[in-house]
Amino acid sequence: MEIERKFKVTVLPADLDRYPVRIIEQGYLSTAPVVRVRRDNDEYYLTYKGAGLLVRQEYNLPLTAESYRHLCEKADGIVIRKRRVVIPLEGQKEKRSIELDLFDAPFEGLVIAEVEFGSEEEAKAFTPPSWFGEEVTYDPHYHNSWLSSHPGLPE
Amino acid sequence: MEIERKFKVTVLPADLDRYPVRIIEQGYLSTAPVVRVRRDNDEYYLTYKGAGLLVRQEYNLPLTAESYRHLCEKADGIVIRKRRVVIPLEGQKEKRSIELDLFDAPFEGLVIAEVEFGSEEEAKAFTPPSWFGEEVTYDPHYHNSWLSSHPGLPE
Repeated sequence: MEIERKFKVTVLPADLDRYPVRIIEQGYLSTAPVVRVRRDNDEYYLTYKGAGLLVRQEYNLPLTAESYRHLCEKADGIVIRKRRVVIPLEGQKEKRSIELDLFDAPFEGLVIAEVEFGSEEEAKAFTPPSWFGEEVTYDPHYHNSWLSSHPGLPE
Repeated sequence: MEIERKFKVTVLPADLDRYPVRIIEQGYLSTAPVVRVRRDNDEYYLTYKGAGLLVRQEYNLPLTAESYRHLCEKADGIVIRKRRVVIPLEGQKEKRSIELDLFDAPFEGLVIAEVEFGSEEEAKAFTPPSWFGEEVTYDPHYHNSWLSSHPGLPE
């Protein structure tokens, strides 16, 4: 089960290059349920996400680079490419971090920050850093599966 | 983990219509690892089978009829169609059954019997019924994933 909040970001922190960056690439073969292939640096996965909002079955199953590329060609719409910077989040009881996704073409300029929590209470109590922009947790236009079939920046 | 033996069948038991028949349809999106979609009567699944011969990670994840059809169009090669008749196997300590697969075009005439066991010892001790033909447990030409890319009967 994933409990996360999601925010648009328009101003980047100045010290961004202090943090490790991963190259993420992902394509959708199905959206309901989600069947997704993802490259995360040199690791490759097939992800299945069952139906349901609060509790959602999720499986991440290993692929080879070759099977990833083969399945990626079967993706619907756009294969999303983004750089992911992981920034430790200070001032939390539990160890939490910000996943900052900087999207490549055709979504240049789109930057989304995601924070994952251990409980709904923790998610609700979270005060976003001042550099976070508009919250888009409940806006389907910022789901990667939506973006994959809608090139360009969400309105 | 699956432990099974597989046999060609050329002579069918006379009382075959006593047993329930299921319609099975399956396509392969990847073969290493196996990513397969299957219809089994009115149920639909995405199956992932990890690498490995003896111990093989296997997941069967539910699909809707719609997502099944969508993913089926992405299958490589032939979508295999077969009728599966399940026949109880008599004279075994444990409750075992024969899965008899009668293939449709382009594999008309191909009939394969599979029996699944609880252990290697049990598999080795199994005496096939007299109507079973040649054993093909170790012959990759009778794997469904092989058939999907090789139309016609194996030589």
